[in-house]
Amino acid sequence: MAKYKKLPSLSENPTDWYQEVVARAQLAEHAPVKGCMVMLPYGNAIWENIKGNLNSLIEDHGAENVCFPLLIPYSYLSREKEHVEGFSPEIAVVTHAGGEKLPEPLVVRPTSETIIHESMKRWITSYRDLPLKINQWANVMRWEKHPRLFLRTSEFFWQEGHTAHATEEEARAEVAEMTVIYHDFCEDYLAVPTLMGRKSEKEKFAGAVESYSIEGLMPDGRALQMGTIHYLGTNFSKMANVCFVGEDNAEHFVEMTSWGVSTRLIGAIIMVHGDDKGLKIPPRIAPTQVQIVAVSQDEKVIEYCKDLAAKLKKAGLRAKADLRDVRPGVKYNDSELRGIPMCVAIGAKEIAEDTVDLKLRDGVAKSCVLSELTDEVIRAELDEYHERLLSAAKEQLNRMVRKVTSQDALKQAIQDGDMAEMMWCNETECELQIKEATGASSRNMPLDDTAIDEHCKCAWCGKPARKFAYFAKAY
Amino acid sequence: MAKYKKLPSLSENPTDWYQEVVARAQLAEHAPVKGCMVMLPYGNAIWENIKGNLNSLIEDHGAENVCFPLLIPYSYLSREKEHVEGFSPEIAVVTHAGGEKLPEPLVVRPTSETIIHESMKRWITSYRDLPLKINQWANVMRWEKHPRLFLRTSEFFWQEGHTAHATEEEARAEVAEMTVIYHDFCEDYLAVPTLMGRKSEKEKFAGAVESYSIEGLMPDGRALQMGTIHYLGTNFSKMANVCFVGEDNAEHFVEMTSWGVSTRLIGAIIMVHGDDKGLKIPPRIAPTQVQIVAVSQDEKVIEYCKDLAAKLKKAGLRAKADLRDVRPGVKYNDSELRGIPMCVAIGAKEIAEDTVDLKLRDGVAKSCVLSELTDEVIRAELDEYHERLLSAAKEQLNRMVRKVTSQDALKQAIQDGDMAEMMWCNETECELQIKEATGASSRNMPLDDTAIDEHCKCAWCGKPARKFAYFAKAY
Repeated sequence: MAKYKKLPSLSENPTDWYQEVVARAQLAEHAPVKGCMVMLPYGNAIWENIKGNLNSLIEDHGAENVCFPLLIPYSYLSREKEHVEGFSPEIAVVTHAGGEKLPEPLVVRPTSETIIHESMKRWITSYRDLPLKINQWANVMRWEKHPRLFLRTSEFFWQEGHTAHATEEEARAEVAEMTVIYHDFCEDYLAVPTLMGRKSEKEKFAGAVESYSIEGLMPDGRALQMGTIHYLGTNFSKMANVCFVGEDNAEHFVEMTSWGVSTRLIGAIIMVHGDDKGLKIPPRIAPTQVQIVAVSQDEKVIEYCKDLAAKLKKAGLRAKADLRDVRPGVKYNDSELRGIPMCVAIGAKEIAEDTVDLKLRDGVAKSCVLSELTDEVIRAELDEYHERLLSAAKEQLNRMVRKVTSQDALKQAIQDGDMAEMMWCNETECELQIKEATGASSRNMPLDDTAIDEHCKCAWCGKPARKFAYFAKAY
Repeated sequence: MAKYKKLPSLSENPTDWYQEVVARAQLAEHAPVKGCMVMLPYGNAIWENIKGNLNSLIEDHGAENVCFPLLIPYSYLSREKEHVEGFSPEIAVVTHAGGEKLPEPLVVRPTSETIIHESMKRWITSYRDLPLKINQWANVMRWEKHPRLFLRTSEFFWQEGHTAHATEEEARAEVAEMTVIYHDFCEDYLAVPTLMGRKSEKEKFAGAVESYSIEGLMPDGRALQMGTIHYLGTNFSKMANVCFVGEDNAEHFVEMTSWGVSTRLIGAIIMVHGDDKGLKIPPRIAPTQVQIVAVSQDEKVIEYCKDLAAKLKKAGLRAKADLRDVRPGVKYNDSELRGIPMCVAIGAKEIAEDTVDLKLRDGVAKSCVLSELTDEVIRAELDEYHERLLSAAKEQLNRMVRKVTSQDALKQAIQDGDMAEMMWCNETECELQIKEATGASSRNMPLDDTAIDEHCKCAWCGKPARKFAYFAKAY
């Protein structure tokens, strides 16, 4: 159960605040194996709700769920040169199994492109087999020397979609579509606005032709890459020899994409919405949406709270009654700390006067007739609360994105804990200089660059600008 | 898509039949890493439905879902002597990670007792923290030299429940309750009857005080352990030092249990219900419950089938329309092969006469007015079909369990492909002799042994009988 010492201040000490709130709200804890985490019931339930909702969108998008194996032969990984170079420093390797040294080491998947493409080779023969879209919800492992719960852990949980297409055009359309699906999911379910765009050469996925991302901006000024979508072209299909016979009767390599989001999303929810009292879990993914607080141990009050919670639960709301024999203040604190969207306190007075306050976690309250309280009334309040969370997060994002046109302005923006938006040359050399000077990396490049013309200059190096780009420190 | 060559005969060649039906119905395939499997969309969807339904029962039982890490320090495993001896020959070991040799090897979890108990040690301090019940849905790895899809794979998917209690009585009650929950789940959702009982010393879980199981009997006479429930006593809590202060103010070791079922359940469904035409997936977990077959490409027929499927889907049934431009016979064969519970063929005739046959996969058909076809009508038929599947499976089980009272009778039963039920001395020496002579192992010992008295003798060795026991060859 939660403790009642005050949380560290979010604005003054975001790192301690994060650690404390994750621990006290019992979302997750560090596992004995360095870098790994234990997802506790509350954190796990948030992830389950994220999974359930996003999975429906992925199914509607036309991808079917599968389960591929955890272990991948090392030789598969090394087929794609950039891919193996990118992942080698992070992989965990199984060298012994079944009491014997293995003839070939096996890698605990850091991502599953190579093993999935091996199957696609067998599944795809003709253009009639395309597009092929599959998805899996899986654990993956990328060895992490500086772990932070949900944000960077050696083992994490994610979904990875893998698609194969007949043409570049279709594969690119897939990438664009998934980018928007992820962006909208974050707004519609997590109340977190994100910036969509293309990653730079330096920041792209190892082995991709192009990578795209949705980037969130945390209140401490650091960006969080919340989802990535890769246009793989034929880089992987050439290595794994994934071909199809086209309508033209000739053989072609398939065009591929892959895309994923992970338990990182929980880190974004924590930071974007949290305050000095604790979490604010967005209602559509909150394990408990409505907490009914019994303000006394009076038998009638307890019964009333129990019945109300049961009624709301039956109507499909995630409602719980807090009937513990502790002071009501303790119950309110717990509900706030855990970020439960709505808290409804009921005592003898509320029952006698047949009136009750629906208190949302952001402080907004609405009085209503207790005996007329229905799930529709609550749903409407939760929807409004979701919109307020999203608006507040959008305002915060807009406030923190600063347009810069010079080296000094860029340095100042990063130093002030903001994100810089600028015209950029899109060259790795320039990106390395910016990193060196400011600690910021390019986050992504907005898709619309029509406003860039031949007179535009890179805010950093002064060479001709090719793109708009966001620069920030990042998790 | 499915091929149309006849399946091997189930009764004459059950091994080939199994392999072929798994491949053709596209449930799963072997992965490039020996012993591992790829669960294809259809097999994965069956597993998702099993998970969803069983998870509700586990939640109602009071366990909360968590996610523990994949990797366990080798030293944890070796704390419990029997545990590490039991699992050592099967474990996969990570020796290198993040580009370095690890100071201590990490084991890919074969089961998670040791790492979960390490957390329980921190979570439990007082009797008020008990009982503690958690569950996780996870992938685990036990290296397998002779893999068979779903039945024995090096990586498999399961749920593992882990509980801690203040007293032996409560822990034993937990074991008894979970045994019944598993047994009832198999009957109510998979239409598979099982035999509940205690495992012998030889067959129990490595490190448990006692193990219990539910055992299914496959048509080829082999038993399949479909779920296990372990009473761990204080064996593990003593090793990990998991203590609590009791109401008596003294320190005690907690009493523990663990329990699990796995993707093996899919193997049971395949074998228990299958026939020479293919699978029969029980309706409550079938990815598609109703297949609407368009018998022509007539526009009106196609529209009618689409609309009907959409209507039924909206009403919560898992309905699909097969609108492919292939002969109706091909569609019926596919539906049978994949074991879809109900097939509804619709053509111009059915629409004109406003009458249709609801054909269940077991051959039973019911005629009804097409325009009055509702989800309730279909649900009632599916429920009856479930009961018929269960009855048939129970009859098969009863027919194949043979009471034996002598060595010859036991040998004959096993040779005939039956399971033997007998009075038994419950001694490992006797069990080893039986295994040597017949190939059968003890499956479990029914809980009710009140009929055993001092005059009863072991059917094999003639010593005093202690228990009833089931013996069979096993998967």
